[in-house]
Amino acid sequence: MAAHALGSVAATLEELARIGASPDGGVTRTAWSPELFEAYEWLGERMRVLGLEVEVDAAGNLIGRWNAGEGKAVVAGSHLDTVPSGGKLDGALGVVAAVHAVARLQEQGFIPARPVWVTAFMDEEGTRFDASLFGSRAFAGEDVTPLGSRVDTHGTTLAEAMQERGYDIFRAGAANRLGDVHAYLELHIEQGPVLESEGTQIGAVTSIVGFRGYRVRLRGQANHAGTTPMALRRDAFVGAARIAVELRDFARERVGLTANVGKVAVLPGGSNVVPGLVELTVDTRSAVAEGVAELERFVPELIARVASEEGLEAEVEPTSSLQPVALDTGLVAAIEQAAAAEGATSRRLPSGAGHDAMVLGRYVPAAMIFIPSAGGISHSPAEHSSPEEVELGMRVLAATLARVASA
Amino acid sequence: MAAHALGSVAATLEELARIGASPDGGVTRTAWSPELFEAYEWLGERMRVLGLEVEVDAAGNLIGRWNAGEGKAVVAGSHLDTVPSGGKLDGALGVVAAVHAVARLQEQGFIPARPVWVTAFMDEEGTRFDASLFGSRAFAGEDVTPLGSRVDTHGTTLAEAMQERGYDIFRAGAANRLGDVHAYLELHIEQGPVLESEGTQIGAVTSIVGFRGYRVRLRGQANHAGTTPMALRRDAFVGAARIAVELRDFARERVGLTANVGKVAVLPGGSNVVPGLVELTVDTRSAVAEGVAELERFVPELIARVASEEGLEAEVEPTSSLQPVALDTGLVAAIEQAAAAEGATSRRLPSGAGHDAMVLGRYVPAAMIFIPSAGGISHSPAEHSSPEEVELGMRVLAATLARVASA
Repeated sequence: MAAHALGSVAATLEELARIGASPDGGVTRTAWSPELFEAYEWLGERMRVLGLEVEVDAAGNLIGRWNAGEGKAVVAGSHLDTVPSGGKLDGALGVVAAVHAVARLQEQGFIPARPVWVTAFMDEEGTRFDASLFGSRAFAGEDVTPLGSRVDTHGTTLAEAMQERGYDIFRAGAANRLGDVHAYLELHIEQGPVLESEGTQIGAVTSIVGFRGYRVRLRGQANHAGTTPMALRRDAFVGAARIAVELRDFARERVGLTANVGKVAVLPGGSNVVPGLVELTVDTRSAVAEGVAELERFVPELIARVASEEGLEAEVEPTSSLQPVALDTGLVAAIEQAAAAEGATSRRLPSGAGHDAMVLGRYVPAAMIFIPSAGGISHSPAEHSSPEEVELGMRVLAATLARVASA
Repeated sequence: MAAHALGSVAATLEELARIGASPDGGVTRTAWSPELFEAYEWLGERMRVLGLEVEVDAAGNLIGRWNAGEGKAVVAGSHLDTVPSGGKLDGALGVVAAVHAVARLQEQGFIPARPVWVTAFMDEEGTRFDASLFGSRAFAGEDVTPLGSRVDTHGTTLAEAMQERGYDIFRAGAANRLGDVHAYLELHIEQGPVLESEGTQIGAVTSIVGFRGYRVRLRGQANHAGTTPMALRRDAFVGAARIAVELRDFARERVGLTANVGKVAVLPGGSNVVPGLVELTVDTRSAVAEGVAELERFVPELIARVASEEGLEAEVEPTSSLQPVALDTGLVAAIEQAAAAEGATSRRLPSGAGHDAMVLGRYVPAAMIFIPSAGGISHSPAEHSSPEEVELGMRVLAATLARVASA
């Protein structure tokens, strides 16, 4: 089976994007939706043409096995589910490119020393049930049954949605293939501006950031902005502003750290009234565990210090917490060598967003390949990488797979 | 006519508050409303009992004239209109206390060397037509006819509302009495925390602050908060936060200056999205012209500097502008002496809010007496000063009137 039979990666992505196409030019293939399973069938057919053994496992993961060589498999994949009106590349690129990479290796006459599997993990996005990374977690042997009781906005549980499609949350554990995996590789769009702004073609992802999220409420005293002397004010917005600026400065002075205050409500909200109450969110991330630990100390300390200095009461509620995952240095080097062999420029960088590799990377050597995203835009119909960028990403994935599957 | 016939000032204020009483315990007597004219009739009757000559002038001001002595009149007053669900004191105190002060002086057998007038100026609040200080402006000879075209939320113009009550905007100029005024005195609640927090009984107001208001729009770039490195962000909220903090620090380091950022909208408003657009209001005030001039230089400079440093586009739209008014030093001293004679503690302070004295003070010697406001609260049913504070304010007003009307 020759790779040219599949055409270009971009062309396959365009065809796939018809499944779940939304009127605004985006793609909507929610987890467990008919559209997602239609995409599985469509891509599964292309896997079969390449001689892969295709199944959808007990957790709803599409797996195509190139049963070659011996021992544990090299797995390449990503996900086919999308956010509502998402782009054509987020997730789909990594799965489609893995299929094309297998075709390319077969065309090159490459004989793998190990099995090569292509996977599309169920529900990476977590949009409908807030159960993101469901499929990769089950695949990696984590217990996903507690997620079965999560409900969507219509009150349907994840367990019920699975049942509708013939799946059983209590059997999802059967998807555990951790013992069969040698390494995991994932090609993805960067969803950030670094590669594009530098003109670098390939990113070798060194880690996936850890995350600490907070909801903060600052209570001061609403008062007349003309008659209340500055010294007698308890201005909740000044407190929020100081927190946002100090947090930004803290993150900017450190490598691989980010901090964001993205959601802010100021009450009562009159131009001539000193703000009495501010609610804000804090989103902090670091590529390394020490960075996350540093943030975990700094954020509550900062809020308490500013609140005390400004005469405010502060409530700090942690909303989410994820540890960073260091990707495999050997695989990162393999990606860099593969990129060089394909004549591509590359750089190392952390991933600021979560991916299936974040789950697999906790248990097995894992790595990710990034290609540039136009404007860093993602989760939008405007998400875009050029056909050449997409094709190069696939070639680097294939070359990396060849290196890892030869070992 | 004896003062005790009127009872206490607090009792008169309570009776008056029944006219326009709102279910939440507040008072609603909008400008040009039937309730306001009912209050005029009710208080006018009490003026007549004291022998005052009562009229409502062409601008809707209630005037009671104690025609004694010779020459120009000493005028004491404030306003009887309120904001919706306002307090019982804002405005009403100054008018009611002036009536009681006349009664007290009569009871004391005081013979004024000049006429003494009591005034309730039309539409100090400006709630309905955004035509605040309408009556005192007409009384002071300013041209108010351009205000006639201002509309309320139902599309009724001020001119139409006046016509309904039998008034003609084009005849409002006949209310000009500037040539007849020797001095103006106004008793008012502080509407701020200074006197209460210090335990001072009387404030001798030295000036009414000038005002500069702005609407500011900061445009950055909305982006993913995880994948966009700190160095590549154009965070509109960090810009807004820096402006708010620097503005506060600037005002706090200077005497008699205030600054407030009270209304803030952050867009798109996702916890994991770098803010791309922030709209905010800036309210700055100073008791002296140099302070206002300093603010007028500082605010646009600050915004431009922060915007440039943060990579933002800034639009700054001035929304309002009022010059500060210095009150008469001789009258301020007279108030202090009157307070001392009544055994009251006093201090000088500026007024952070606008008042009818702000208009009169541009043309004739004017001064204001403040009494403490519980919690600094105003424009609310919770507005409160004790009966003793109210009575003392009236006595200091009477003693000041006696001094000024003897001259």
